[in-house]
Amino acid sequence: MKKRINLEWTLGWSDSSEKPADMYPCHVPGCAQQDIAEALGYPDFKVGGNYRQFAWMEDKWFHYKASFPKPELRHGESLWFVSEGIDYECTVIVNGVPVVPHHEGMFSRIEADLSGCLKKDNSLTVKIFPHPKRPGAAVGREEASASAKPPVGYGWDWHPRLLTSGIWSDTCLEVRKRHSLDSFDIRYTLNESMDVASINVEWTGDFRSGDTLSLTLEDPSGKTVIKKEAPAFGDFGTIELHDPELWWTHDQGKPSLYKATLSLEGGDAISKTFGFRRIRLVMNEGSPGEGPQFHISEDGNPASLPSFPKTCDKVPAQFELNGRRIFAKGTSWVAPEIFPSAVTAQRCEELVRIAKDTNFNILRCWGGCIVNKDHFFDICDREGILVWQEFPLSCNNYPDDPAYLKVLEQEATAIVLRLRHHPCIALWCGGNELQNNWSGMTVQSLPLRLLDSICLRYSPEIPFNMTSPLYGIGHGGYLFSYDGRDIFQVMNISHFTAYCEAGMPGASPMEVIRKIIPADELRNPGPGGAWEDHHAYKAWDGKDGTWLETGTIEKYLGKPAGVEDLIEKSQLLQSVGYREIYEEARRQKPYCSMVLNWCYDEPWPSAANNSLVVWPAVPKPALKEVREACRPICASARFDRFDHVPGENLDIGLWVLNDSPEPFRESLRIKARLLPGNPSDGEGVEAGEWTSGPLKPGTNAQGPVLSVRIPEGWTGRIFRVILDVPSHPGLSASYTLALRSDRTPEP
Amino acid sequence: MKKRINLEWTLGWSDSSEKPADMYPCHVPGCAQQDIAEALGYPDFKVGGNYRQFAWMEDKWFHYKASFPKPELRHGESLWFVSEGIDYECTVIVNGVPVVPHHEGMFSRIEADLSGCLKKDNSLTVKIFPHPKRPGAAVGREEASASAKPPVGYGWDWHPRLLTSGIWSDTCLEVRKRHSLDSFDIRYTLNESMDVASINVEWTGDFRSGDTLSLTLEDPSGKTVIKKEAPAFGDFGTIELHDPELWWTHDQGKPSLYKATLSLEGGDAISKTFGFRRIRLVMNEGSPGEGPQFHISEDGNPASLPSFPKTCDKVPAQFELNGRRIFAKGTSWVAPEIFPSAVTAQRCEELVRIAKDTNFNILRCWGGCIVNKDHFFDICDREGILVWQEFPLSCNNYPDDPAYLKVLEQEATAIVLRLRHHPCIALWCGGNELQNNWSGMTVQSLPLRLLDSICLRYSPEIPFNMTSPLYGIGHGGYLFSYDGRDIFQVMNISHFTAYCEAGMPGASPMEVIRKIIPADELRNPGPGGAWEDHHAYKAWDGKDGTWLETGTIEKYLGKPAGVEDLIEKSQLLQSVGYREIYEEARRQKPYCSMVLNWCYDEPWPSAANNSLVVWPAVPKPALKEVREACRPICASARFDRFDHVPGENLDIGLWVLNDSPEPFRESLRIKARLLPGNPSDGEGVEAGEWTSGPLKPGTNAQGPVLSVRIPEGWTGRIFRVILDVPSHPGLSASYTLALRSDRTPEP
Repeated sequence: MKKRINLEWTLGWSDSSEKPADMYPCHVPGCAQQDIAEALGYPDFKVGGNYRQFAWMEDKWFHYKASFPKPELRHGESLWFVSEGIDYECTVIVNGVPVVPHHEGMFSRIEADLSGCLKKDNSLTVKIFPHPKRPGAAVGREEASASAKPPVGYGWDWHPRLLTSGIWSDTCLEVRKRHSLDSFDIRYTLNESMDVASINVEWTGDFRSGDTLSLTLEDPSGKTVIKKEAPAFGDFGTIELHDPELWWTHDQGKPSLYKATLSLEGGDAISKTFGFRRIRLVMNEGSPGEGPQFHISEDGNPASLPSFPKTCDKVPAQFELNGRRIFAKGTSWVAPEIFPSAVTAQRCEELVRIAKDTNFNILRCWGGCIVNKDHFFDICDREGILVWQEFPLSCNNYPDDPAYLKVLEQEATAIVLRLRHHPCIALWCGGNELQNNWSGMTVQSLPLRLLDSICLRYSPEIPFNMTSPLYGIGHGGYLFSYDGRDIFQVMNISHFTAYCEAGMPGASPMEVIRKIIPADELRNPGPGGAWEDHHAYKAWDGKDGTWLETGTIEKYLGKPAGVEDLIEKSQLLQSVGYREIYEEARRQKPYCSMVLNWCYDEPWPSAANNSLVVWPAVPKPALKEVREACRPICASARFDRFDHVPGENLDIGLWVLNDSPEPFRESLRIKARLLPGNPSDGEGVEAGEWTSGPLKPGTNAQGPVLSVRIPEGWTGRIFRVILDVPSHPGLSASYTLALRSDRTPEP
Repeated sequence: MKKRINLEWTLGWSDSSEKPADMYPCHVPGCAQQDIAEALGYPDFKVGGNYRQFAWMEDKWFHYKASFPKPELRHGESLWFVSEGIDYECTVIVNGVPVVPHHEGMFSRIEADLSGCLKKDNSLTVKIFPHPKRPGAAVGREEASASAKPPVGYGWDWHPRLLTSGIWSDTCLEVRKRHSLDSFDIRYTLNESMDVASINVEWTGDFRSGDTLSLTLEDPSGKTVIKKEAPAFGDFGTIELHDPELWWTHDQGKPSLYKATLSLEGGDAISKTFGFRRIRLVMNEGSPGEGPQFHISEDGNPASLPSFPKTCDKVPAQFELNGRRIFAKGTSWVAPEIFPSAVTAQRCEELVRIAKDTNFNILRCWGGCIVNKDHFFDICDREGILVWQEFPLSCNNYPDDPAYLKVLEQEATAIVLRLRHHPCIALWCGGNELQNNWSGMTVQSLPLRLLDSICLRYSPEIPFNMTSPLYGIGHGGYLFSYDGRDIFQVMNISHFTAYCEAGMPGASPMEVIRKIIPADELRNPGPGGAWEDHHAYKAWDGKDGTWLETGTIEKYLGKPAGVEDLIEKSQLLQSVGYREIYEEARRQKPYCSMVLNWCYDEPWPSAANNSLVVWPAVPKPALKEVREACRPICASARFDRFDHVPGENLDIGLWVLNDSPEPFRESLRIKARLLPGNPSDGEGVEAGEWTSGPLKPGTNAQGPVLSVRIPEGWTGRIFRVILDVPSHPGLSASYTLALRSDRTPEP
């Protein structure tokens, strides 16, 4: 059994590893930059350009200090320093003795036996090195390319340059005695028909001969279904469980969880919650036959040569859960706080619940950020949300250098061993955009081969991808229109097995913007000030703002009348764009099997961003549209383009989308009509109707394309298309399209 | 020190694991099928359909038996059974005791201590199981998909159905004493500038305290450059060697070899020959910018959407040797015998020398066959030929099944540990055509992930590919013409980073065919008999014969007048086709970095095949053309098509190809002329000339396209184009094209 001793810490900084001039109160777990800002009475870093106030701390050393009296240690007891995570590189010193001479990496546990260096009164110091920066690298994410520190703090198109460090995870002293159960993990395999689970138990500890361990397994109802004993130096063998309740995502079934407890007679007990499920990535229907042939032509178009047998260079992007192909709908999760220790279980709970309410069944945890603490995965296990977990590599060419590989192996191993038992884990991924031409890694890159081999060794039952995207998978774009093509036109000719980072920028709500943009700048948005600091301008490719995209807004919706109108119009384009992305991806099923947007949340309040939820957890209007688009069953309309002219014909392709595991036996009568944006333009017009037949599980139905004239007289900048499903109003759909009432139709 | 005891073996078969009825003399190492055919006086299996005489043996058990008296064993000595390889699954029994209860896999060593079960007179039995066949699989290669046995014997388009087994590698008894040096391996890394090698030494053995090991390293001239001693239980540390002579392929430099010897004081000594080199696969020039963009259109053509930053989905296919990008020219090696034990060092030597004379610098050892014994790699080390080594998987969907993975891990580990020290090893590859749609493995397949992790663990300095082909690499085709397009037209619009299996069928020489086709069939080639048994008909896709392609021959060269003429015309098409494939691939440098044909040799004499060398080692006429095409420096002509009409204009694109590491400083004057195929048609005509400037190392020069009229009067089926280089006749080139003298040019 372990006795925990918490410590009172103070914090200071210095230019070298020498001791700091002054010490300040601080939090553990916490973040050095945040504590020092608090101690020095800095203003809110989220306002305007205040985040720059941290810049001076970048190359400092941070010193955490605590003192403690020597505790009573009975025979066989020892005192340990234990930390679940220190960001990023440190040394731990007790009474002048370096008990941890050097540790690099924020995701691996740090332990040190202090017994040898204790006095009556003891001083403990954790010295944190300056942030790692690749020598000679340009200021920005490239500085992160030689370390396993998440790169996002080095600056991103939606994240300020703000580097953090500190004792970010649970840290204390532990009195340990001989005779203990230290670790416990439960492993299983399911037979092909998934009605027998073969369970194996792994543990470590310090035992005496004759020690007995007892294992209990409780089913989701709390009933004990397995109770076994084994000698601590022995083995439970392989335990068979028949007809286990399978873990499903919330939209496909019940996320059934089992609880396993291993106890040492008269000693420690450790519990693990887990679920039985089989997750696979399989080839998408239709994709194996694609790809280059024995020869392809210079224009890259195989069709210009006779059809030889084709290679499957596309990768599997179709999730198969418990033998069922499911359509993955979700989003890209980024750290919801800039300071890692500030990411609480409450915040994760709130954000995961919003995701579930949005009909998402998967979260892609993006590789540029921290890997979340256990509470996040516990929530996803419980709520039935899959997690695509990336390692902390993004957009860089991480080197084959042995020193880097050593740290990466330690960090990745710690991550996989900590998380592999969670049924929510659906995919390990090496990281974000690593094989793109702006990063330049390849299948030969040792860091990616190493991550594959670590996942294979410790977690072979979970798929692994070297990076995102891989061939066949769409990644981006991030704008409402490209070279005059709006998002409808782009999606309608896009052809991917999955859309993994489809973005659509939109402004934050006015009440958020009021808090972050100083009053004197509020009314004149533009580059160069707080609006730019908060990513409304020059955040990405520089063209037309980004992320506020004022030019695009004016093109489609006319010149905004003030900031409120600008924000409203920006949010409308984001709502329309995301609705189209999610619905068109679903209409492309089964060839397409997944749609994730870029991005879900954000680490601080932005003025404009691709996010659906503004910091801390404020839904943007687009979220409601995405929820509609992701309903298990719903009516859906396909349009050729966004903007239309009064008097021209509008084509409405009718669909019923069905991702639910149940068949839908009734026929659905769908009535389509047009509504003017301007109530004064009258009632609207009927467009026609269609009655769909019964639906097979997880299968869409495609109906006719209705063609209806947009009344000449209509005014205003928008109009609406309504799909009514009288028998099931919950399946109805409503779309907003742009009206160019200043134009006449082309002859 | 080890004392070797050879055994006298006999061989028998049975229907079950029971003892056989009769025993026959046999060879060890050898092949059971071959020995039994010999014992039963079977006719030559290479003639006609005689290979079917082995069919009855497929599901038999084979029993190798030997008896031996108990040898004198002094104190501390023990007697061992040692085999370097038994094909494929076996059990070893001594005096009724199963000393090796079960072993699967032909590439891993088998050892058993017999000390415990010896009598005065001893009987040793090696029982070999029937060939593994996946239950329910169709007869053919698919039967091999659940085992690590090379699949080619199950039948291929160029290999008869003939399954082999037996004690195929060196096998004996060994008297071992305590106190021995058992294994020795040498590992090194080169610094970035490759002027310092950091050497580490690994060994195993049975030592006494105080034992000393001495290491000597001899440079390529035989001079000892390192001599060190270390305690057997200790370590040499990292030994630095400055300015090592690097190992190069024969066309890029000298294949310098070092010899390291580790000796146990007063005991064993083991030597290893190796070389210092750095081999990498890097992205081809121009390829990172290619590939699908954030969105691609339904026709697969990225150009129809605006250009977003592009992904590098193409894999690296450019070999970089010692920091220099080299153009890889070579061929696909298959086992030169059907019976694995019959592949001798002499045969390998002969074939590798022919490959070197053909200006090849790489051999791709195809995954369907055995992995060669050490002698093959020793020869490639010495001759300066790179080896792309595949594991024994081909064209199947090898399962994620734990039993298969266990055997694969054992076999692959044995292969990598045995071969990794050879400087010739340039690439580990999971196997052939595993991710194509007729096989269906993916990046998620555990066997491929396992092979990657094994290579990463034991041989990280050598690149690894999961299979061949990967995206961007051309693989096939195998015909002179596809849907009316001849090989010139196909190659001219082909666009690949590498051509790894470009085939071109051709008949074997008449003297070979006379030996394999019975006299009564010799004059009427066709399907259904010996010609088909020897792959001249219905061998591949069934269309138009294959591999004799009589229809194609008639189309381009007219109806053959008898067998000799048919063979000559077939060989002409193969010569023309291969010349074009190799030269056009070189003209596509630097985007293209490699060209390998399918295939080099063959395991028995075929009537027609893509091979360049007929069994046992008889060059086909095409080999001379390939040698010309692969000269380090040569003149080269690009043509639009193969067949032409008198009176029409012929375009001749002029090039100088240079793969040599040296600059070529002189200008080269190239004179082009046409020669009639029919001497009676006269002298020929001048086509023009071009003088190229100096050449940079490894860089081609492109000249003008000459256009010249083919004289109306010319007759016959062929004509020639000559590129004379008066100053360097060795760089001249000569091409044969088809003449349609029965036609007139289109207006």
